[in-house]
Amino acid sequence: MDPVRILEIKESVFENNDRAAQALRQELKSKGIFLLNLMSSPGSGKTTTLKATIAALSGRRKIGVMEADIDSDVDARAIAETGARVIQLHTGGMCHLDAGMTRQGLEGLEAGEEDLVILENVGNLVCPAEFDTGAVKNAMILSVPEGHDKPLKYPLMFQISDVVLINKIDVLPYFDFDMDACREYIHMRNPKAKIFPICAKTGEGIDAWADWLDREVEAWKSGHGYRKGAKL
Amino acid sequence: MDPVRILEIKESVFENNDRAAQALRQELKSKGIFLLNLMSSPGSGKTTTLKATIAALSGRRKIGVMEADIDSDVDARAIAETGARVIQLHTGGMCHLDAGMTRQGLEGLEAGEEDLVILENVGNLVCPAEFDTGAVKNAMILSVPEGHDKPLKYPLMFQISDVVLINKIDVLPYFDFDMDACREYIHMRNPKAKIFPICAKTGEGIDAWADWLDREVEAWKSGHGYRKGAKL
Repeated sequence: MDPVRILEIKESVFENNDRAAQALRQELKSKGIFLLNLMSSPGSGKTTTLKATIAALSGRRKIGVMEADIDSDVDARAIAETGARVIQLHTGGMCHLDAGMTRQGLEGLEAGEEDLVILENVGNLVCPAEFDTGAVKNAMILSVPEGHDKPLKYPLMFQISDVVLINKIDVLPYFDFDMDACREYIHMRNPKAKIFPICAKTGEGIDAWADWLDREVEAWKSGHGYRKGAKL
Repeated sequence: MDPVRILEIKESVFENNDRAAQALRQELKSKGIFLLNLMSSPGSGKTTTLKATIAALSGRRKIGVMEADIDSDVDARAIAETGARVIQLHTGGMCHLDAGMTRQGLEGLEAGEEDLVILENVGNLVCPAEFDTGAVKNAMILSVPEGHDKPLKYPLMFQISDVVLINKIDVLPYFDFDMDACREYIHMRNPKAKIFPICAKTGEGIDAWADWLDREVEAWKSGHGYRKGAKL
């Protein structure tokens, strides 16, 4: 397989995205695939975090990655270096992915053998939050240089995220970032949100996050029959 | 005037945004108001850059500011400290501003005496690029921590921006940011784009950018009759 395969995905025609997302989630469940939707602003470190996560789960989970971008294959090439199965999705200018577009990506990836497929959504703190992709969990990254006030300004993204990774903590000394205030603002939007401070570049905090993700994958798969290796 | 006045703006009903934007631009021209549309990712430093720009143009230009956000009045409060006339626009979840929404903001601001009105758009590198707000010039900020590859991934934003401010150059030593590659990628998208490396926090590079803006305001106003102080 060409490691930088690019798939041009089309805007969905589903009238009811929530229903399409629910159907996709059920289908993934039956196949034992855990889909994680990873969101953030542009440049907060999604791809670097993904690389570190793949390394941390190496030997434990078979991982596939869908890299959604408006243009370029920069991210897919970076992920291909890890050896993970990857596909670059081009959204044709679209600012988010919905369940139908995610399904096109999964079909393009030929997901089936994977325990865990991670969708790197388009870098955007607004629109992706409005569309259920069919993922089991939503994760988002907020990086230190962006500032601790973001939960105040982008409420929905924090509200729908099960996990918030606070990335680039290595540069905390150089920015006015108040970690306590950030935690407070995040929990104001979503009291149940898990928060992991990390540095994807140095690996700090990655194990705690990867262990959490691993447990979630296990919980999703355990106690339910599924056909291992069935293609979507 | 309450310095943190908040206006809930409504989605526009215009069928043809380009036409509405052109009409707004003409109207602003007749009133001698230069409208700048400032865009970026969340957390790249739009508000800090605005504060530094207002300080640099102090005594030269009468400035009004419209702070667009989905929620909070954090930014409007920060701008109010500069003494500039400011209004906080809440977009009701919308990810961008179009010409009709911008007009609502200008009316709420009661713009009329200003030489220069700056719209701080919603933090988003995708959707705001698709809607002409009626601004005379589009400026965008790319901050160093976001990475130099952003023009590859968000082509339209760079294509429609007359100016790119590369902010947070004080932290260049701590990030893998290739300034030459960044310039090359920006000019690949828009060969005419002006590029100003700045640090809004320390003030580095702000004078060059403010002088450019001042000249643009002058060029827009010069040689054309306008009714000073006419309300929009």
